[in-house]
Amino acid sequence: MSHTREKGMTEDRRSQRRTSDERWRTALTRIEPNKIILRGYPLDEVMGRLTFGEAIYLLLMGEVPSPALGRLMEAMLVSFIDHGTTPPSTLAARNTATTGAALRACVAAGILGFGKYHGGDIESCMQFLDTGLELVRKGASYHSAAEQIVQRCVEAEEIPPGFGHRFHTRDPRAARLFQMALELEAEAEHIQMIRAVEQVLHEKPETESLPVNIDGAIAAVCGDIGIPPTVANALFIISRVPGIAAHAEEERARQQPMRQIDPKDHIYDGPSERRLPERRK
Amino acid sequence: MSHTREKGMTEDRRSQRRTSDERWRTALTRIEPNKIILRGYPLDEVMGRLTFGEAIYLLLMGEVPSPALGRLMEAMLVSFIDHGTTPPSTLAARNTATTGAALRACVAAGILGFGKYHGGDIESCMQFLDTGLELVRKGASYHSAAEQIVQRCVEAEEIPPGFGHRFHTRDPRAARLFQMALELEAEAEHIQMIRAVEQVLHEKPETESLPVNIDGAIAAVCGDIGIPPTVANALFIISRVPGIAAHAEEERARQQPMRQIDPKDHIYDGPSERRLPERRK
Amino acid sequence: MSHTREKGMTEDRRSQRRTSDERWRTALTRIEPNKIILRGYPLDEVMGRLTFGEAIYLLLMGEVPSPALGRLMEAMLVSFIDHGTTPPSTLAARNTATTGAALRACVAAGILGFGKYHGGDIESCMQFLDTGLELVRKGASYHSAAEQIVQRCVEAEEIPPGFGHRFHTRDPRAARLFQMALELEAEAEHIQMIRAVEQVLHEKPETESLPVNIDGAIAAVCGDIGIPPTVANALFIISRVPGIAAHAEEERARQQPMRQIDPKDHIYDGPSERRLPERRK
Amino acid sequence: MSHTREKGMTEDRRSQRRTSDERWRTALTRIEPNKIILRGYPLDEVMGRLTFGEAIYLLLMGEVPSPALGRLMEAMLVSFIDHGTTPPSTLAARNTATTGAALRACVAAGILGFGKYHGGDIESCMQFLDTGLELVRKGASYHSAAEQIVQRCVEAEEIPPGFGHRFHTRDPRAARLFQMALELEAEAEHIQMIRAVEQVLHEKPETESLPVNIDGAIAAVCGDIGIPPTVANALFIISRVPGIAAHAEEERARQQPMRQIDPKDHIYDGPSERRLPERRK
Repeated sequence: MSHTREKGMTEDRRSQRRTSDERWRTALTRIEPNKIILRGYPLDEVMGRLTFGEAIYLLLMGEVPSPALGRLMEAMLVSFIDHGTTPPSTLAARNTATTGAALRACVAAGILGFGKYHGGDIESCMQFLDTGLELVRKGASYHSAAEQIVQRCVEAEEIPPGFGHRFHTRDPRAARLFQMALELEAEAEHIQMIRAVEQVLHEKPETESLPVNIDGAIAAVCGDIGIPPTVANALFIISRVPGIAAHAEEERARQQPMRQIDPKDHIYDGPSERRLPERRK
Repeated sequence: MSHTREKGMTEDRRSQRRTSDERWRTALTRIEPNKIILRGYPLDEVMGRLTFGEAIYLLLMGEVPSPALGRLMEAMLVSFIDHGTTPPSTLAARNTATTGAALRACVAAGILGFGKYHGGDIESCMQFLDTGLELVRKGASYHSAAEQIVQRCVEAEEIPPGFGHRFHTRDPRAARLFQMALELEAEAEHIQMIRAVEQVLHEKPETESLPVNIDGAIAAVCGDIGIPPTVANALFIISRVPGIAAHAEEERARQQPMRQIDPKDHIYDGPSERRLPERRK
Repeated sequence: MSHTREKGMTEDRRSQRRTSDERWRTALTRIEPNKIILRGYPLDEVMGRLTFGEAIYLLLMGEVPSPALGRLMEAMLVSFIDHGTTPPSTLAARNTATTGAALRACVAAGILGFGKYHGGDIESCMQFLDTGLELVRKGASYHSAAEQIVQRCVEAEEIPPGFGHRFHTRDPRAARLFQMALELEAEAEHIQMIRAVEQVLHEKPETESLPVNIDGAIAAVCGDIGIPPTVANALFIISRVPGIAAHAEEERARQQPMRQIDPKDHIYDGPSERRLPERRK
Repeated sequence: MSHTREKGMTEDRRSQRRTSDERWRTALTRIEPNKIILRGYPLDEVMGRLTFGEAIYLLLMGEVPSPALGRLMEAMLVSFIDHGTTPPSTLAARNTATTGAALRACVAAGILGFGKYHGGDIESCMQFLDTGLELVRKGASYHSAAEQIVQRCVEAEEIPPGFGHRFHTRDPRAARLFQMALELEAEAEHIQMIRAVEQVLHEKPETESLPVNIDGAIAAVCGDIGIPPTVANALFIISRVPGIAAHAEEERARQQPMRQIDPKDHIYDGPSERRLPERRK
C-alpha cells in the first residue's frame, strides 16, 4: 500500500511502513557450522586464553584488551558483584525466589531494578565530568572547574552524581579502583576531574564531605580508558547478575517458600573475615 | 490468630501463618560501614587480585578456586557468552530493544528465554550421567553402562540430554572444554561417562552420530569439579548476559526503532577471522 | 548441510535444522489496513459492545461468551485483582518501583512471582478434581471419591491443592464464586467434586478444616464451564496485573525512592468500609 | 551512625540512611482475616456486581465509575487488547514461549517492550494537548492553537504525538472511541483539541494527513474524563496482557519449540469476519 510523505516531516517510525528489503547487519558473533567466531576470534581459541572479563571486553568493545585494561575491567566487574541483602533489586529477586520461581525469573526480576537511582548514576556522572572537562579545555584549572560544576549542583540542591552513598562514608570499592588506575597508569582527565570535585566538596564547610561512590569511580575510569556510557551501563548489569543469582539460590536453598522477607531482620552467618592466600597478592 | 494443625498433614505453606519471629540468615556478603565482605574476603582486596570469573566462583561456591578450577570456570563462562543473532532469547532481547526499552529491560527479556530447551539441559544431563555412574558403581564398565542409558533414550525416542545441536555437528566449545579438563587433570568419572556415551552413539548404526553439546560438556565438567546443578544453572545465565547486552546495544545503535526483525535475514559485517596475539597462547 | 537421522529417535529439536519453508499460522487477530479483526469480530465493533472481561474470554476461548459465562468470567477476573501489600509478587513490584523503574518493569517483576506456590495451584487442582471424577465415573459416590483422593494427600502429608490459605480461614472470594455458579446454573461435576472434598475435610477430626481457596474455586468453575488449565493459568496473570500496577504506582507516588520496604510495617489509610450503590446490587 | 547534613543540599537518597521508624501507608486494599476490602468495598460484593473493567477503574482511581465512565473504560481496555503477531512486544513473548518458558515469563518479556515508541506516546500526547489548551485558555481559538503546536512539530521535524500509524491510515479504534465519547457526553476540551490538530494536519498540503492513533485517542479521552497520565500508562499494559498471553499460549500449543519466528511469514487461519449477535448491539 502506498503512503504519502510530506517534505519537512522526519521519516518517523510512525509514518514508515516497516520493510525488510535489505539484510540487516551484525558485527558481534559469526556462526558457521562447527564454528563460533567472537569478534573475529574462534570461541574455542578464546576459551582458556582470555578470562571471562577479557572476553566481555572483547565482545562489548570489539578488541582484546591490553593487560592493563583487562585488569581494570576485571576490577570494575568484581566491584559491583554484590552488596548484600538490602538493595531493592536483590529483594525483588528474593521475593520472586520465595514463590518457587525458576532462577532465570528471579534474576530477571532483580535486573529490572537497576535504574535511575540504582546503578544508573553512571551516565549522568560521565556528563557531569565532561561538563567540567569542557571548562578545563577552555582554560580553567581543574579546581576551578570543579568549583563551578559543584556550585550548579548546590544551587539545584542536588548531590553531584557519583558522590554519596546511603550506607558508606568512604566507598572502599572506589578507593581501590582509583588506586589500580594509578598503578596501571590509566589515570587521566576524568579521574583528575572527579578527584578535583572530591576535593572541592571536602573544602567547603557548607557542602557535606561526600564520598565518591562506585558509580562515580567507574564513570571516571571508563571515561579515561575509552569505554562509552552505553557499555558502562552494561557493566553494572553484567557485574551484579552473579550476586542476584547467588541471593535467589540462597533464598531457595535455605528458606521456607512464601515467606515475608524483612530486609532488616537478618544476620550474617557466613565466613569470618579472612585474607586471600599469599600467591594472590 | 491461632490455627490448628492436624497430625499427618505437612507444615504446608498454606496452613502456616507467616511469621518472622527469628532473624533470617545469609552467608554471602556482609555489609558494614565502609566494608563489603564477600564470603569473608574484603571486596576491595578481591578487586585486582581475583578475576571476575574467580570472584563468581567464590560467591557461588563459597571458596576461592584453585588455579585449575579458576581456569575451567573462566572457560565455561566464556563458552556460552554468545551464539549470534538466532537464539530466541537473543531475539526476545532485540525485539525489546527495538521498542526503545532500557538495556536492563532488554537483558531481562532475554534471560527469560533460558528454559527447558535452551540452556536448561544441564540438570537432566547431570542426572543422566549420574544414572550411568550408578551402574558403574555396581560393577558395569563405562561402555556397558553407557549402552544401557542410551538404550533407554532410544526406547523413549529421545536424544540423550547433552547431545545434539540444531546447528553444529561438532560443538567446538565442548571439545575445547574437555581438552582443558584433561590438561588440568580435572577429568574424572562424569567426563568419562559422557565420553562413553559419545562412543556408544558413534558405534551404533541406528543412532545418529550426535555431538556432545556445550550443555553436556558443562554438565560433565561441573560434575567432576564438584559444582552442583543449581550453580551450573546459574553459569548459563551469568555467561550469556554479556552476549544479550551486546545484541541489545547493537540493535539500539545500528537499527531503526520498531523494525520487524527477521531472524534469518542478516549478514555478519564484523571483523574477519583472526588469531589471538602470541602472548595469549 | 545434510544431517543423518536414524530411525527410532524422535525428530528432536536438537537434530532439526530450523527451517521456515512453510508459513506459520495464527488464529487470533487479523490485521489489515484500517481493520483489526479479533477472532473474526472487527475490534471497533467489539468496543462498546463487549466488556473487557468478555473480550478477554473471546480472545482466549475463540467465541463470545453467553451472558452467564460472561458474568462468571468477570467475577473470576475481579476475584484475584489484588490482595494487598504482602504477596511476594507485589513486594517484588514495589521493590522495583522504589528504584525509579518504569511501570512496565515493575509489573514484569511482579508477574514473575506467579509460580508454583502462588496462583499456580490451579493446574494441580484441576488434575486433583479430575482424579476424583474418574472414580465417580467408575461408580463411586462423590463422597467416597473425595475420601479416596483426600486420603492420598494425607498419606503424602500434603494439603489438597485448592485448599488452605496462609491468611484466611474462609476465603470470601471462593464462597462468592460458588454462589454465582449456582445462581447462573453453571455448577456441575467439578464444583460438586470440590464441595465433596471440602465436606470430607470437614468431617475428619484428623484433617484440618481447610477452606477452599480462590485457586480451587477458579479451578472448579473453569472445569465446569469448559475453560482449560492453560487458559485458567492466564486468568491469574491477567487479573492480578491491575493490582500490581496500582501498588507500583502508589509506591512511586507516595514513598521516597530507594526505601527499605518492610512487608509487615504498614497501615491502611484508604477508604473505610462501604457498600456499593443500590443500582449495582 | 551519624551523618552530617549541610544546608542547601537536598535530602537526597544518597545521603539518607534508610530508616523505617514510621509505618508506611497504603490506600488500596485492606486485608483482614476472611475479608478483602478493595478501596473500601468488600471484594466478594464487588464480584458479580462490577465488571473487571469497572473494578480496574475502582482500583486505580479510588471510586466506582459512573455507567458512562465505566463504558469508556471498557472500550479503552478493549481497544488495545491485541494487534496481531507483528508488534515487537508480541514477538518478544513468542520468542520466549518457543523456548518452553512458563506463561508468566512470556508475558513479562512481552510487557517489557512497552516503551518509548510503543504505547508510550500517551504522556507526550497529553502534554502536547495541554500545551495547546494553555493557548486556548489565553484566548486563542482551538484552530489557531492547533496550528501553533503543529508548527512546532513541523519545525522539529517530528510527527505530533498521538498521530500516525505504521500500518493504518485511519485507526478504527480511535474513531470508535471518539464516537463513544460523543454519545456518552464525555467529550470536552482535550478531544476538541485533538480534533483541531487532526483538522490542521488535514488542511496543510505540506503536512501528511496523519490519522489520530489509539495512543492519541486514549490520551484525549483520559484527559477529558480526569484519568491522569500515570494511570493512562497502566491502561496500555493492563489491556495488552491478554493479547500477549494469547499469543504465547498459541505459540506453545501450535508450534514446534525453538523455532525461528519470522514476523512476516505467517497467515491467519482464524474465524472469517463475522458480526456480533443482535442482542450485543
